[in-house]
Amino acid sequence: MAEDMLLFWASGSPPCWRVMIALEEKNLQGYKNKHLSYEKNEHKNPDVLQINPRGQIPTFKHGDVVVNESIAACLYLQNPFKSQGTQLMPDSVSQQALVLQRMLEAEALQKKIYDVLFYEYYVPEAERHESLKLWESYLQQMGKGSYLTGKDFSLADVAMFPDLAYLPRFGTLRKERYPRLMEYYEMVKERPSVKASWPPTWREKEKEQDTLKDL
Amino acid sequence: MAEDMLLFWASGSPPCWRVMIALEEKNLQGYKNKHLSYEKNEHKNPDVLQINPRGQIPTFKHGDVVVNESIAACLYLQNPFKSQGTQLMPDSVSQQALVLQRMLEAEALQKKIYDVLFYEYYVPEAERHESLKLWESYLQQMGKGSYLTGKDFSLADVAMFPDLAYLPRFGTLRKERYPRLMEYYEMVKERPSVKASWPPTWREKEKEQDTLKDL
Repeated sequence: MAEDMLLFWASGSPPCWRVMIALEEKNLQGYKNKHLSYEKNEHKNPDVLQINPRGQIPTFKHGDVVVNESIAACLYLQNPFKSQGTQLMPDSVSQQALVLQRMLEAEALQKKIYDVLFYEYYVPEAERHESLKLWESYLQQMGKGSYLTGKDFSLADVAMFPDLAYLPRFGTLRKERYPRLMEYYEMVKERPSVKASWPPTWREKEKEQDTLKDL
Repeated sequence: MAEDMLLFWASGSPPCWRVMIALEEKNLQGYKNKHLSYEKNEHKNPDVLQINPRGQIPTFKHGDVVVNESIAACLYLQNPFKSQGTQLMPDSVSQQALVLQRMLEAEALQKKIYDVLFYEYYVPEAERHESLKLWESYLQQMGKGSYLTGKDFSLADVAMFPDLAYLPRFGTLRKERYPRLMEYYEMVKERPSVKASWPPTWREKEKEQDTLKDL
């Protein structure tokens, strides 16, 4: 079914992981894929560059269609596979607005988390808490047991979860401080699409150094 | 018609400008709006924070719907106003893919241009040229007189043009080096939606200091 698809990806890369969750949710298992290593600079391999001149992953191809921005790829899949698997984009116009907003907001959050983790860019402690408190409040508003935009799992969750998963992995997300975020994390972690796409390198090594300390 | 809409914006901010172009293209003139000044820190005003706790602009509201990520807002408008004004998202699935890809790619380009202009973040000369050459090649592929994704103006152009407009404003974009980009710039600049939303502060002062030198 998904044999006309090709994905170049790296383990634990939030943008790659998003696309992989979306593919699972849309029952598009069995796509061709190549697991690349950033450490070995494999995202600059000629077969990647041929499809994506920017030499970035994810690089995703469906037939002749190339989409290699993660948010674009997740959005793209919703139309040709609308009636297949999970409906990740709701029909209601106001719910669409919320899903789009949280999705793009997750992209901004990802950049911030990445900066802190990998580039030692200084984001003040207070500001880090601000970001997380905001997401905690989004979940609080939706009520217990909900996803980011309501009772249904959506593209907003697809975009956000890989960012969130970095926090318990690289530090401690205190349950007393972020009860809904942690509950949400525990719930989404068990979702088949997330389990199927869980970063293989994370399976080998359960936890990283506590870069983020106690948040 | 657009009286149930409210936009907080700043002059020349590419994310704000995107939303303003999209509104014009969708014939949604007459929306309520407030022109804010970054210099005076007005994006942290209580009336902004009430709608957008992150204190960022654009902040956009349509009835009870709040969308304040520029790409999300542009995408959002396509559904409730599908049959009104310019069709900015094509019906064809493969064209949708291209529009989404370029749109999100423009967001990445914007961050890079901003970093260079305002945060004195060092992006090597060669890398700057690489980015621009890529966009030049996208336009080359589409042929003379085309927009970013083909013969029709689309959300990709809405997202990209405000980024591009910074280049001739803050420096020189050499026509011999980027003939299609400059041709494209001159063409889109004359579009009514772009003229109507042209940054008012740019009208007052025709050109900024040549921060970008000769690109």
